[in-house]
Parts: sequence; structure tokens; C-alpha cells
Amino acid sequence: MTVNLESIQEAAKRIHPYIHQTPVLTSCTLDEMTNAHLFFKCENFQKIGAFKIRGATNAVLLLPEEIARNGVATHSSGNHAQALALAAKIRGIPANIVMPNNSASVKKAAVAGYGAAITFCEPTINAREMMLESIIEKTGATFIHPYDNENIIAGQGTVGLEFISQVANLDFIIVPIGGGGLIAGISTVVKALKPQIKIIGAEPILANDAYLSFQQKTFVPSNHLETTICDGLLTPVGRLTLPIILERVDDIFTASDKTIISAMQIIWERMKVIAEPSAAITLAVLLQHRDYFEGKNIGLVLSGGNVDIKTLASLLF
Amino acid sequence: MTVNLESIQEAAKRIHPYIHQTPVLTSCTLDEMTNAHLFFKCENFQKIGAFKIRGATNAVLLLPEEIARNGVATHSSGNHAQALALAAKIRGIPANIVMPNNSASVKKAAVAGYGAAITFCEPTINAREMMLESIIEKTGATFIHPYDNENIIAGQGTVGLEFISQVANLDFIIVPIGGGGLIAGISTVVKALKPQIKIIGAEPILANDAYLSFQQKTFVPSNHLETTICDGLLTPVGRLTLPIILERVDDIFTASDKTIISAMQIIWERMKVIAEPSAAITLAVLLQHRDYFEGKNIGLVLSGGNVDIKTLASLLF
Repeated sequence: MTVNLESIQEAAKRIHPYIHQTPVLTSCTLDEMTNAHLFFKCENFQKIGAFKIRGATNAVLLLPEEIARNGVATHSSGNHAQALALAAKIRGIPANIVMPNNSASVKKAAVAGYGAAITFCEPTINAREMMLESIIEKTGATFIHPYDNENIIAGQGTVGLEFISQVANLDFIIVPIGGGGLIAGISTVVKALKPQIKIIGAEPILANDAYLSFQQKTFVPSNHLETTICDGLLTPVGRLTLPIILERVDDIFTASDKTIISAMQIIWERMKVIAEPSAAITLAVLLQHRDYFEGKNIGLVLSGGNVDIKTLASLLF
Repeated sequence: MTVNLESIQEAAKRIHPYIHQTPVLTSCTLDEMTNAHLFFKCENFQKIGAFKIRGATNAVLLLPEEIARNGVATHSSGNHAQALALAAKIRGIPANIVMPNNSASVKKAAVAGYGAAITFCEPTINAREMMLESIIEKTGATFIHPYDNENIIAGQGTVGLEFISQVANLDFIIVPIGGGGLIAGISTVVKALKPQIKIIGAEPILANDAYLSFQQKTFVPSNHLETTICDGLLTPVGRLTLPIILERVDDIFTASDKTIISAMQIIWERMKVIAEPSAAITLAVLLQHRDYFEGKNIGLVLSGGNVDIKTLASLLF
């Protein structure tokens, strides 16, 4: 595996001029509520409102000039689309984003606002992949995978590097798992520098493929009829990320959508901070496993804050 | 006037163990949008979700022991009620809070949660004052005014002391005005230490008594049939605060409720932070006076975050 401490430290230097060092927030009320000491790493305050700009910027800056000039491409309706669009803008190269035609208009506007070329397609994975293929063939753009890419993983790992420099004596760091890029990066850097910190993955029960794969030490698909509200965590764990997770993550816990909604509301009401469901899951996992975490110093990665307030209100009431 | 640099510096030391040093957030998107450099002092992350805990803690800690033991009292449906309740809990003395019987249940629960004795009354200013009188007579509790109290003003001034230690080279600080305690304290400390920083008050057009009083250099009541959404800024400017404001504040600008709602939405969507209308008014004032602030380094005091998400959603959509 070529994702290691050095590649993450180099990524941190490389992306430093283009990203925020995000603050860590604490809350006495939440400490009392959970009987533990909580430290929230606020990547929801990051550029584009999520950690994804770290990996995308690292991956785009690492492309050799003769390849970079043809641009980059991906298909995404979420935070990776915005991240890649902004990273390409930073380097001054074209970004081609394939988005499902039912994407929220606020997301289309954000991607367009960074100057990316958007191609709309039917909202199926097949349509998205075929459209992406054809764009890459036409433009020579490089496909930047949202998580199964070593430079992406190294970029996301810089969250962990920052976090352990900001808070001493963490016992745990709880990290959301979708494709696994964030937790693969964070666990790599933390196990290299502070191996005593336990890394816990947080996954919705309704998209528990990483949990099942971790238990069985091989790829197991999630198999639920209902869809979780954590739209950022629907993607299956990756071919590159799973082996790193199996080696470096201590455990994976799941939480129900009901607890995730409560956690989101608690973060909003008590901390005055907007976390998206895929970020609030870290607190949800803590709330569902109180005894396990009692009395400990716990880092929670609030990975993003891109949620529509109308949706949020409709979930809460 | 006995509110001066020394009383604010002493207040800062006195309340330090009990309050948060709140972070200052920046946003490239908002800088681009306004063509200025904005620095948000996040008192919405403060204990009880607003700056008011600073003044209340200072005032309660300064009471002589033989007076303190009889407790403190106030009438309030807002942040001062929670602040006084928590400050009394910190000192271990009784708090008696008179609240209108139509207060939001979340606010009643918060005040009760700090162990205060709540007395409900009809939602008129007369009923509130009569009830408070009778409680003070019965208990011997000391009335702590929400803003016309030198120790309260000194406590709120610590926001300014912290802010100028966190950000160098501010050209302006924009501060919401309700009763004027916050801006009286901030302007006192800033004019003593960095007189080149201009202090601008922010007031809703629909509750513009401080604006009119500032223009005419004497008390002028606001006279509007409509009520502003800034529930924290409905109180008239005080007998103690107005003279300080006239001496130390550079100007007062107003903003419409429509711009205040937009500002609140921008802060939520772009910064992932919950500001109440009475705090978002600082950005609203900037948005309504762009030319005046262009190219400058501007501090904005996000004074609180106590807004109901349902209310917020209903305002936005």
C-alpha cells in the first residue's frame, strides 16, 4: 500500500495554501449528556462545506502537467463533484462533471459556480458511467475516483494529521464510512503517529456494507430495501480502501437513521452548527454505544454540512 | 461612567473559568460576495448559546456574599433568563425568573434545567414588572437588569477584548443593538485599546430607537406597527447604555427584516453555522451598505444562535 505517513504529510504541505485548517469545537452540554469528553473536528466549515476538497486538491495538484492540461472528470451528485470542480479551478484546468438530471438545483449551481462543465444524464449508475466514458474519450480528461485513489486517500488523511495536532490525548476518533477514503487516510496517519488512539468507523445500519465486510474480512454488499438519509454514505467501500480499513481500523459501529436524526438535531440545537446526516452519524454511534465510550476523550469527524434546511426541518418535525 | 477598560479586564479574569473563548470564523465565499474581509466572532457557540452569560456571570460573581445568598431575579423570555439562571447556578445561589406564560417551551425547559425558580405571568410588561416586584419583596433577591447595569456591560465588553486579541488590523466591528449592553461594553474596550477601529451598531429598521436616539442625541422611542423578527433587539436602549453609545460608537446602521432573513440563510448555507436573526443583522447591515465597507477588515459579532429550526425554515421558504 502506497498510502503512508509520508504521502499524507506531503499532501498536507501541498494543499495547505488552498484549504482551511478547521477548528475543533467542544460542548459542556454534550459532554454531560454522553458522560465523555467530545472534540468535534469541523470539516463542515471546510471549503465546499466538506472534507472532500482535501483529497481532490491533492489528486489534481499531483497530475503531471501534460496530463493535467486535458482536465479531470468524475460522476457525482455530491460533495466530490464540488470538490473536483474547485480543485480544477485552483489548478486552472477543465473539470467535467457528470451529474444525474435529478440533482438538487443548489448542487448544480455550486458545481457550475466553480466553472466546471456539467453533463446531465439519467439517474442510474449505468447512465453515469457510460456518459463519463464518452466524455473521457472525447476530452482526454483524467478520471478522479471519489475514494479508490491513493492521492485522494492521502489528501483525506490530512484531517487526521491536523486533528491529533489540535487535541492531545484522544482515546478514540470516530469517522463516517461511505467509500472509506476518509477513514483509510485518517487511520493510516493516526496509527503511524499515535497508535494508542482507537479508530472507529461509523456506518448507517441501512448501508452497512463496510460493517459486514469488516466482520467477514471480505467484500459483502449491503442489502436493504430502505435507503438511509445519509446520502454521502451510500457508496460501497472500495477495493483500495477496504484492505487499509481491515489493517488499521479498530472497529466499525452502526447507527439507526432515527438516532442519526436525533444526533443532527442535538448538534444543531446545542452546538449551533449544521452537520449533514453523514457527519452526525459519528455522534449517533456514540449515543448508541454510550457504555463503550464512557469517560473517554473522543474525537468526532463532522465530515460535512451540506444539508438543505428545508430537508432538515422536514426530518425533525 | 464607571464602565472602563479596567472593569472589563477584571471581568475577563473573573469570568474566564466559566465561559468559552469563542472562535473567530472566516469564509472566502462571503469575502468574495461582499468584497471585504469578514471575521465572525462566534458568540453563538458561547454557553447558553449567546454572549449574555458573560455579563450575567460578572454581575452575579460581584455581589457581596450577604446579598448574594438571597439570590437574584429578573424578568425575561430570552437569553438573559438562561444566562442569569446559569450564572446563579455557578455561584450556588437561587435564581428567580419571571417568564411570560406564552414563552417557547424550549426556553422554559432551558431555564428550568439550570435549576432556576420560574414564575409565569401574563405576557405584558406591566404583569412582568409587578410579579418581579413581589418576588423581590418576598425573597430579598437582587434584580439583575439585562443591560442597564455596569457589571453586565463590563461582562459583555469582554467579547471585544477577546476579539481584538484574536484578529489584528480590524477596520470595523459591527455589533447588534437591543438594550445596548453589548455595544456599550465592546466600544469601551475597543476605544481604549484600538481607537482606530470604528464601532458600528446594527439595528432592525422595525426597532430603530437606538438609531433615532443616536441621530438626535436623546432618547427617541421606536414607533412601528410591525414587529421585527429580531426578538432579541426589541428592548429600548438603556439609560446607562445610551450615553456610552453616544460617546464611543461611530455610527448606527439599520437593516430590513428581509435582508436579515437573507443574511441568516447565507450564514447557514455558506458557513454551516446557526445565527439567530438578532445576530445575522450584522451581516445584513453590511449587505445593505456594501460600498461603505468595501475592501475593509470587518469584525461581525454573531451574538447568539438561539433560533428554532422550524421557525428558521418557515422564514426561509
